[in-house]
Amino acid sequence: MDEPVATAKEAGEGTPIEFWFDFTSPYAYFASIEVEGVAGRHGRTVTWRPFLLGAAFKTTGMQALTRTPMRGEYGRHDWARLARRLGVPLSFPTVHPASTVAAGRAFLWLEGDRPELAVPFARAVFAAHFGRGEDIGTAEQVLAIAEGEGADRLRLGEALASPELKEGFRARTERALARGVFGSPFFFVDGEPFWGADRLPMIDEWLRRGGW
Amino acid sequence: MDEPVATAKEAGEGTPIEFWFDFTSPYAYFASIEVEGVAGRHGRTVTWRPFLLGAAFKTTGMQALTRTPMRGEYGRHDWARLARRLGVPLSFPTVHPASTVAAGRAFLWLEGDRPELAVPFARAVFAAHFGRGEDIGTAEQVLAIAEGEGADRLRLGEALASPELKEGFRARTERALARGVFGSPFFFVDGEPFWGADRLPMIDEWLRRGGW
Repeated sequence: MDEPVATAKEAGEGTPIEFWFDFTSPYAYFASIEVEGVAGRHGRTVTWRPFLLGAAFKTTGMQALTRTPMRGEYGRHDWARLARRLGVPLSFPTVHPASTVAAGRAFLWLEGDRPELAVPFARAVFAAHFGRGEDIGTAEQVLAIAEGEGADRLRLGEALASPELKEGFRARTERALARGVFGSPFFFVDGEPFWGADRLPMIDEWLRRGGW
Repeated sequence: MDEPVATAKEAGEGTPIEFWFDFTSPYAYFASIEVEGVAGRHGRTVTWRPFLLGAAFKTTGMQALTRTPMRGEYGRHDWARLARRLGVPLSFPTVHPASTVAAGRAFLWLEGDRPELAVPFARAVFAAHFGRGEDIGTAEQVLAIAEGEGADRLRLGEALASPELKEGFRARTERALARGVFGSPFFFVDGEPFWGADRLPMIDEWLRRGGW
Protein backbone atom coordinates (compact mmCIF):
# COMPACT_ATOMS: atom_id res chain seq x y z
CA MET A 1 0.00 0.00 0.00
CA ASP A 2 3.01 2.31 0.28
CA GLU A 3 3.90 1.67 -3.37
CA PRO A 4 3.16 4.89 -5.29
CA VAL A 5 0.95 4.55 -8.35
CA ALA A 6 3.46 5.44 -11.07
CA THR A 7 0.91 6.67 -13.60
CA ALA A 8 -0.71 9.07 -11.16
CA LYS A 9 2.65 10.54 -10.30
CA GLU A 10 3.79 10.91 -13.87
CA ALA A 11 0.51 12.41 -15.06
CA GLY A 12 0.45 14.93 -12.24
CA GLU A 13 3.96 16.34 -12.21
CA GLY A 14 3.49 20.04 -11.72
CA THR A 15 -0.24 20.18 -12.46
CA PRO A 16 -1.95 22.94 -10.42
CA ILE A 17 -4.35 21.95 -7.66
CA GLU A 18 -7.88 23.11 -8.49
CA PHE A 19 -9.58 24.78 -5.53
CA TRP A 20 -13.32 25.14 -6.16
CA PHE A 21 -15.26 27.15 -3.61
CA ASP A 22 -18.23 29.37 -2.90
CA PHE A 23 -17.40 32.69 -1.23
CA THR A 24 -20.05 32.23 1.48
CA SER A 25 -18.74 28.82 2.56
CA PRO A 26 -17.00 28.98 5.96
CA TYR A 27 -14.99 25.85 5.25
CA ALA A 28 -13.75 27.45 2.02
CA TYR A 29 -12.51 30.39 4.12
CA PHE A 30 -10.42 28.06 6.26
CA ALA A 31 -9.22 26.06 3.24
CA SER A 32 -8.16 29.31 1.55
CA ILE A 33 -5.73 29.88 4.41
CA GLU A 34 -4.10 26.46 4.11
CA VAL A 35 -4.32 25.31 0.50
CA GLU A 36 -1.35 27.25 -0.87
CA GLY A 37 0.90 25.85 1.85
CA VAL A 38 -0.08 22.26 1.09
CA ALA A 39 0.45 22.80 -2.64
CA GLY A 40 3.73 24.63 -2.17
CA ARG A 41 5.23 21.79 -0.12
CA HIS A 42 4.96 19.64 -3.24
CA GLY A 43 5.97 22.22 -5.82
CA ARG A 44 2.40 22.76 -6.93
CA THR A 45 0.42 25.92 -7.55
CA VAL A 46 -3.28 26.46 -6.87
CA THR A 47 -5.95 27.46 -9.39
CA TRP A 48 -8.75 29.26 -7.53
CA ARG A 49 -12.21 28.52 -8.92
CA PRO A 50 -15.22 30.25 -7.34
CA PHE A 51 -18.61 28.87 -8.32
CA LEU A 52 -22.22 28.97 -7.13
CA LEU A 53 -22.75 26.23 -4.56
CA GLY A 54 -26.50 26.87 -4.63
CA ALA A 55 -26.63 25.38 -8.12
CA ALA A 56 -25.18 22.12 -6.78
CA PHE A 57 -27.55 22.18 -3.81
CA LYS A 58 -30.46 22.16 -6.26
CA THR A 59 -29.20 18.83 -7.59
CA THR A 60 -28.23 17.22 -4.29
CA GLY A 61 -31.07 18.56 -2.16
CA MET A 62 -28.53 19.83 0.37
CA GLN A 63 -28.66 23.23 1.99
CA ALA A 64 -26.41 25.58 3.91
CA LEU A 65 -25.19 24.15 7.21
CA THR A 66 -26.49 27.17 9.12
CA ARG A 67 -29.99 26.30 7.90
CA THR A 68 -29.80 22.67 9.03
CA PRO A 69 -30.74 21.64 12.58
CA MET A 70 -27.91 20.13 14.64
CA ARG A 71 -25.38 20.54 11.84
CA GLY A 72 -25.65 24.32 12.13
CA GLU A 73 -24.84 24.29 15.84
CA TYR A 74 -21.89 22.00 15.28
CA GLY A 75 -20.72 24.22 12.43
CA ARG A 76 -20.65 27.33 14.58
CA HIS A 77 -18.65 25.54 17.24
CA ASP A 78 -16.36 24.02 14.64
CA TRP A 79 -15.69 27.28 12.80
CA ALA A 80 -14.65 29.02 16.01
CA ARG A 81 -12.33 26.09 16.74
CA LEU A 82 -10.83 26.16 13.24
CA ALA A 83 -10.25 29.92 13.47
CA ARG A 84 -8.37 29.44 16.77
CA ARG A 85 -6.35 26.63 15.22
CA LEU A 86 -5.23 28.75 12.26
CA GLY A 87 -4.95 31.97 14.24
CA VAL A 88 -7.29 33.84 11.89
CA PRO A 89 -10.15 36.18 12.83
CA LEU A 90 -13.73 34.91 12.68
CA SER A 91 -16.75 37.15 12.91
CA PHE A 92 -19.67 35.19 11.58
CA PRO A 93 -21.70 37.15 8.98
CA THR A 94 -25.23 38.04 10.05
CA VAL A 95 -26.29 37.70 6.40
CA HIS A 96 -25.55 34.06 5.68
CA PRO A 97 -25.52 32.42 3.24
CA ALA A 98 -24.75 35.58 1.26
CA SER A 99 -25.32 35.93 -2.46
CA THR A 100 -22.00 35.19 -4.16
CA VAL A 101 -22.93 35.93 -7.75
CA ALA A 102 -21.30 39.38 -7.84
CA ALA A 103 -18.11 38.20 -6.10
CA GLY A 104 -17.82 35.23 -8.43
CA ARG A 105 -18.28 37.36 -11.52
CA ALA A 106 -15.78 39.91 -10.27
CA PHE A 107 -13.21 37.19 -9.69
CA LEU A 108 -13.72 35.92 -13.24
CA TRP A 109 -13.30 39.40 -14.68
CA LEU A 110 -10.14 40.03 -12.68
CA GLU A 111 -8.78 36.68 -13.82
CA GLY A 112 -8.96 37.91 -17.41
CA ASP A 113 -8.19 41.58 -16.89
CA ARG A 114 -5.85 41.78 -13.91
CA PRO A 115 -4.91 38.15 -13.15
CA GLU A 116 -2.45 39.16 -10.43
CA LEU A 117 -5.35 40.68 -8.47
CA ALA A 118 -7.74 37.73 -8.61
CA VAL A 119 -6.45 35.73 -5.64
CA PRO A 120 -5.77 38.79 -3.44
CA PHE A 121 -9.35 39.88 -4.23
CA ALA A 122 -10.66 36.43 -3.22
CA ARG A 123 -8.73 36.60 0.05
CA ALA A 124 -10.11 40.09 0.67
CA VAL A 125 -13.67 38.85 0.10
CA PHE A 126 -13.14 36.04 2.61
CA ALA A 127 -11.58 38.46 5.09
CA ALA A 128 -14.55 40.85 4.80
CA HIS A 129 -17.17 38.11 4.99
CA PHE A 130 -15.75 35.83 7.70
CA GLY A 131 -12.98 37.87 9.26
CA ARG A 132 -15.17 40.95 9.82
CA GLY A 133 -18.66 39.48 9.38
CA GLU A 134 -19.62 41.81 6.53
CA ASP A 135 -22.11 41.05 3.81
CA ILE A 136 -20.53 40.51 0.38
CA GLY A 137 -23.76 40.08 -1.54
CA THR A 138 -24.18 43.35 -3.43
CA ALA A 139 -22.27 44.70 -6.41
CA GLU A 140 -21.39 47.80 -4.34
CA GLN A 141 -19.82 45.71 -1.60
CA VAL A 142 -17.87 43.64 -4.09
CA LEU A 143 -16.69 46.72 -5.99
CA ALA A 144 -15.42 48.33 -2.80
CA ILE A 145 -13.41 45.22 -1.97
CA ALA A 146 -12.00 44.97 -5.51
CA GLU A 147 -11.08 48.64 -5.54
CA GLY A 148 -9.27 48.12 -2.25
CA GLU A 149 -7.10 45.54 -4.01
CA GLY A 150 -6.29 47.90 -6.85
CA ALA A 151 -8.95 47.08 -9.44
CA ASP A 152 -10.58 49.73 -11.64
CA ARG A 153 -13.95 50.18 -9.97
CA LEU A 154 -15.63 51.84 -12.94
CA ARG A 155 -14.60 49.22 -15.49
CA LEU A 156 -15.39 46.34 -13.14
CA GLY A 157 -18.76 47.91 -12.38
CA GLU A 158 -19.62 47.98 -16.06
CA ALA A 159 -18.37 44.44 -16.53
CA LEU A 160 -20.53 43.13 -13.67
CA ALA A 161 -23.62 44.16 -15.59
CA SER A 162 -22.49 42.67 -18.90
CA PRO A 163 -24.15 39.60 -20.39
CA GLU A 164 -20.72 38.15 -21.25
CA LEU A 165 -19.54 38.05 -17.65
CA LYS A 166 -22.87 36.69 -16.40
CA GLU A 167 -22.67 33.94 -18.99
CA GLY A 168 -19.03 33.26 -18.22
CA PHE A 169 -19.67 32.73 -14.53
CA ARG A 170 -22.78 30.69 -15.22
CA ALA A 171 -20.73 28.46 -17.54
CA ARG A 172 -18.07 28.01 -14.89
CA THR A 173 -20.64 26.85 -12.36
CA GLU A 174 -22.06 24.50 -14.98
CA ARG A 175 -18.59 23.11 -15.51
CA ALA A 176 -18.20 22.53 -11.78
CA LEU A 177 -21.45 20.58 -11.68
CA ALA A 178 -20.53 18.58 -14.77
CA ARG A 179 -17.34 17.52 -13.02
CA GLY A 180 -19.19 16.40 -9.91
CA VAL A 181 -18.42 19.36 -7.64
CA PHE A 182 -21.24 19.24 -5.07
CA GLY A 183 -19.70 20.96 -2.06
CA SER A 184 -17.33 23.70 -0.98
CA PRO A 185 -14.39 23.54 -0.85
CA PHE A 186 -13.76 20.89 -3.48
CA PHE A 187 -10.34 20.04 -4.86
CA PHE A 188 -8.95 18.23 -7.89
CA VAL A 189 -5.43 16.90 -7.63
CA ASP A 190 -4.33 15.39 -10.95
CA GLY A 191 -8.01 14.84 -11.71
CA GLU A 192 -8.64 13.14 -8.36
CA PRO A 193 -11.58 14.73 -6.47
CA PHE A 194 -11.43 15.62 -2.78
CA TRP A 195 -14.34 17.20 -0.93
CA GLY A 196 -13.92 19.32 2.16
CA ALA A 197 -11.36 21.38 4.03
CA ASP A 198 -10.91 18.29 6.21
CA ARG A 199 -9.23 16.59 3.29
CA LEU A 200 -6.19 18.84 3.08
CA PRO A 201 -4.13 16.43 5.22
CA MET A 202 -5.09 13.60 2.85
CA ILE A 203 -4.26 15.73 -0.19
CA ASP A 204 -0.87 16.34 1.41
CA GLU A 205 -0.44 12.58 1.80
CA TRP A 206 -1.64 11.96 -1.76
CA LEU A 207 0.92 14.38 -3.17
CA ARG A 208 3.69 12.98 -1.00
CA ARG A 209 3.01 9.41 -2.01
CA GLY A 210 2.12 10.17 -5.63
CA GLY A 211 -1.32 8.64 -5.17
CA TRP A 212 -2.14 5.14 -3.99
CA MET B 1 -2.05 29.56 19.09
CA ASP B 2 0.35 26.81 20.15
CA GLU B 3 -0.48 27.44 23.82
CA PRO B 4 -2.46 24.41 25.02
CA VAL B 5 -5.71 25.14 26.79
CA ALA B 6 -4.80 23.92 30.25
CA THR B 7 -8.35 23.15 31.36
CA ALA B 8 -9.04 20.93 28.34
CA LYS B 9 -5.90 18.96 29.02
CA GLU B 10 -6.53 18.56 32.72
CA ALA B 11 -10.17 17.60 32.27
CA GLY B 12 -9.33 15.05 29.61
CA GLU B 13 -6.37 13.16 31.02
CA GLY B 14 -7.12 9.55 30.26
CA THR B 15 -10.78 10.05 29.32
CA PRO B 16 -11.84 7.54 26.63
CA ILE B 17 -12.62 8.81 23.14
CA GLU B 18 -16.28 8.26 22.32
CA PHE B 19 -16.77 6.77 18.87
CA TRP B 20 -20.42 7.06 17.79
CA PHE B 21 -21.37 5.30 14.57
CA ASP B 22 -24.04 3.56 12.56
CA PHE B 23 -23.11 0.09 11.30
CA THR B 24 -24.20 0.87 7.72
CA SER B 25 -22.02 3.98 7.44
CA PRO B 26 -19.03 3.41 5.12
CA TYR B 27 -17.05 6.21 6.77
CA ALA B 28 -17.62 4.53 10.15
CA TYR B 29 -16.07 1.35 8.69
CA PHE B 30 -12.93 3.26 7.76
CA ALA B 31 -12.86 5.12 11.07
CA SER B 32 -13.18 1.81 12.94
CA ILE B 33 -9.87 0.74 11.38
CA GLU B 34 -8.00 3.86 12.50
CA VAL B 35 -9.59 5.17 15.69
CA GLU B 36 -7.86 2.83 18.15
CA GLY B 37 -4.46 3.73 16.73
CA VAL B 38 -5.08 7.46 17.13
CA ALA B 39 -6.33 6.99 20.69
CA GLY B 40 -3.51 4.63 21.63
CA ARG B 41 -0.82 7.11 20.55
CA HIS B 42 -2.07 9.39 23.32
CA GLY B 43 -2.73 6.77 25.98
CA ARG B 44 -6.47 6.87 25.40
CA THR B 45 -8.98 4.10 24.96
CA VAL B 46 -12.06 4.14 22.74
CA THR B 47 -15.67 3.69 23.80
CA TRP B 48 -17.64 2.29 20.84
CA ARG B 49 -21.20 3.63 20.63
CA PRO B 50 -23.44 2.35 17.83
CA PHE B 51 -26.66 4.32 17.29
CA LEU B 52 -29.34 4.77 14.64
CA LEU B 53 -28.25 7.46 12.21
CA GLY B 54 -31.70 7.45 10.60
CA ALA B 55 -33.11 9.06 13.75
CA ALA B 56 -30.72 11.99 13.30
CA PHE B 57 -31.52 12.21 9.59
CA LYS B 58 -35.16 12.78 10.54
CA THR B 59 -34.07 15.92 12.38
CA THR B 60 -31.53 17.22 9.89
CA GLY B 61 -33.34 16.28 6.68
CA MET B 62 -30.19 14.51 5.48
CA GLN B 63 -30.17 11.11 3.83
CA ALA B 64 -27.70 8.36 3.02
CA LEU B 65 -24.95 9.45 0.60
CA THR B 66 -25.75 6.60 -1.77
CA ARG B 67 -29.23 8.06 -2.17
CA THR B 68 -28.00 11.58 -2.97
CA PRO B 69 -27.11 12.64 -6.54
CA MET B 70 -23.46 13.58 -7.09
CA ARG B 71 -22.51 12.85 -3.49
CA GLY B 72 -23.24 9.15 -4.04
CA GLU B 73 -20.88 8.93 -7.01
CA TYR B 74 -18.15 10.73 -5.12
CA GLY B 75 -18.72 8.46 -2.14
CA ARG B 76 -18.22 5.29 -4.14
CA HIS B 77 -14.99 6.65 -5.62
CA ASP B 78 -13.85 7.87 -2.21
CA TRP B 79 -14.59 4.60 -0.38
CA ALA B 80 -12.56 2.61 -2.90
CA ARG B 81 -9.73 5.10 -2.42
CA LEU B 82 -9.93 4.91 1.38
CA ALA B 83 -9.93 1.10 1.28
CA ARG B 84 -6.76 1.14 -0.84
CA ARG B 85 -5.19 3.65 1.54
CA LEU B 86 -5.84 1.47 4.59
CA GLY B 87 -5.24 -1.82 2.83
CA VAL B 88 -8.64 -3.19 3.84
CA PRO B 89 -11.14 -5.07 1.68
CA LEU B 90 -14.18 -3.23 0.31
CA SER B 91 -17.12 -4.95 -1.32
CA PHE B 92 -19.96 -2.49 -1.31
CA PRO B 93 -23.20 -4.01 0.06
CA THR B 94 -26.00 -4.37 -2.46
CA VAL B 95 -28.46 -3.71 0.38
CA HIS B 96 -27.54 -0.19 1.48
CA PRO B 97 -28.31 1.50 3.74
CA ALA B 98 -29.01 -1.66 5.75
CA SER B 99 -31.19 -1.77 8.83
CA THR B 100 -28.86 -1.53 11.83
CA VAL B 101 -31.36 -1.97 14.64
CA ALA B 102 -30.51 -5.62 15.29
CA ALA B 103 -26.76 -5.05 15.15
CA GLY B 104 -27.03 -2.08 17.50
CA ARG B 105 -29.13 -4.00 19.99
CA ALA B 106 -26.78 -6.96 19.85
CA PHE B 107 -23.81 -4.71 20.56
CA LEU B 108 -25.59 -3.26 23.57
CA TRP B 109 -26.42 -6.70 24.93
CA LEU B 110 -22.85 -7.88 24.48
CA GLU B 111 -21.61 -4.78 26.22
CA GLY B 112 -23.52 -5.82 29.32
CA ASP B 113 -23.21 -9.60 29.07
CA ARG B 114 -19.87 -10.27 27.40
CA PRO B 115 -18.12 -6.90 27.23
CA GLU B 116 -14.93 -8.39 25.82
CA LEU B 117 -16.89 -9.49 22.74
CA ALA B 118 -18.60 -6.18 21.93
CA VAL B 119 -15.82 -4.53 19.90
CA PRO B 120 -14.78 -7.74 18.11
CA PHE B 121 -18.45 -8.20 17.22
CA ALA B 122 -18.62 -4.63 15.87
CA ARG B 123 -15.52 -5.23 13.76
CA ALA B 124 -17.04 -8.47 12.47
CA VAL B 125 -20.24 -6.65 11.49
CA PHE B 126 -18.22 -4.05 9.56
CA ALA B 127 -16.15 -6.79 7.92
CA ALA B 128 -19.28 -8.66 6.81
CA HIS B 129 -21.07 -5.53 5.58
CA PHE B 130 -18.28 -3.61 3.87
CA GLY B 131 -15.47 -6.15 3.58
CA ARG B 132 -17.67 -8.84 2.01
CA GLY B 133 -20.71 -6.80 0.94
CA GLU B 134 -23.19 -8.84 3.00
CA ASP B 135 -26.45 -7.58 4.41
CA ILE B 136 -26.45 -7.19 8.19
CA GLY B 137 -30.08 -6.16 8.52
CA THR B 138 -31.79 -9.23 9.92
CA ALA B 139 -31.63 -10.78 13.38
CA GLU B 140 -30.47 -14.05 11.80
CA GLN B 141 -27.52 -12.35 10.09
CA VAL B 142 -26.55 -10.53 13.26
CA LEU B 143 -26.83 -13.69 15.36
CA ALA B 144 -24.58 -15.60 12.97
CA ILE B 145 -21.93 -12.88 13.21
CA ALA B 146 -22.18 -12.75 17.02
CA GLU B 147 -21.97 -16.52 17.29
CA GLY B 148 -18.85 -16.43 15.14
CA GLU B 149 -17.29 -14.17 17.77
CA GLY B 150 -18.19 -16.53 20.60
CA ALA B 151 -21.55 -15.18 21.79
CA ASP B 152 -24.36 -17.44 22.96
CA ARG B 153 -26.69 -17.40 19.99
CA LEU B 154 -29.73 -18.67 21.85
CA ARG B 155 -29.54 -16.15 24.70
CA LEU B 156 -28.74 -13.27 22.37
CA GLY B 157 -31.64 -14.29 20.12
CA GLU B 158 -34.00 -14.09 23.09
CA ALA B 159 -32.54 -10.77 24.19
CA LEU B 160 -32.97 -9.23 20.72
CA ALA B 161 -36.73 -9.67 21.05
CA SER B 162 -36.94 -8.28 24.58
CA PRO B 163 -38.55 -4.89 25.31
CA GLU B 164 -35.66 -4.01 27.64
CA LEU B 165 -33.02 -4.25 24.92
CA LYS B 166 -35.21 -2.40 22.41
CA GLU B 167 -35.72 0.36 24.93
CA GLY B 168 -32.04 0.41 25.86
CA PHE B 169 -30.91 0.91 22.27
CA ARG B 170 -33.64 3.46 21.61
CA ALA B 171 -32.47 5.40 24.66
CA ARG B 172 -28.90 5.30 23.46
CA THR B 173 -29.87 6.78 20.11
CA GLU B 174 -31.89 9.43 21.95
CA ARG B 175 -28.83 10.25 24.00
CA ALA B 176 -26.78 10.63 20.82
CA LEU B 177 -29.30 13.07 19.38
CA ALA B 178 -29.50 15.02 22.63
CA ARG B 179 -25.73 15.48 22.47
CA GLY B 180 -25.85 16.76 18.91
CA VAL B 181 -24.66 13.65 17.10
CA PHE B 182 -26.01 14.13 13.57
CA GLY B 183 -23.61 12.05 11.46
CA SER B 184 -21.48 8.93 11.45
CA PRO B 185 -18.80 8.61 12.59
CA PHE B 186 -18.96 11.21 15.33
CA PHE B 187 -16.39 11.55 18.11
CA PHE B 188 -16.19 13.22 21.49
CA VAL B 189 -12.74 13.95 22.85
CA ASP B 190 -12.95 15.40 26.35
CA GLY B 191 -16.46 16.56 25.48
CA GLU B 192 -15.29 18.21 22.24
CA PRO B 193 -17.33 17.06 19.21
CA PHE B 194 -15.72 16.01 15.91
CA TRP B 195 -17.75 14.86 12.94
CA GLY B 196 -16.39 12.56 10.26
CA ALA B 197 -13.64 10.05 9.60
CA ASP B 198 -11.80 12.95 7.95
CA ARG B 199 -11.29 14.47 11.37
CA LEU B 200 -9.07 11.76 12.81
CA PRO B 201 -5.91 13.72 11.88
CA MET B 202 -7.33 16.75 13.68
CA ILE B 203 -8.27 14.64 16.71
CA ASP B 204 -4.68 13.42 16.72
CA GLU B 205 -3.50 17.05 16.69
CA TRP B 206 -6.02 17.99 19.41
CA LEU B 207 -4.76 15.23 21.70
CA ARG B 208 -1.12 16.06 21.00
CA ARG B 209 -1.59 19.75 21.74
CA GLY B 210 -4.06 19.28 24.58
CA GLY B 211 -6.68 21.32 22.73
CA TRP B 212 -6.34 24.86 21.45
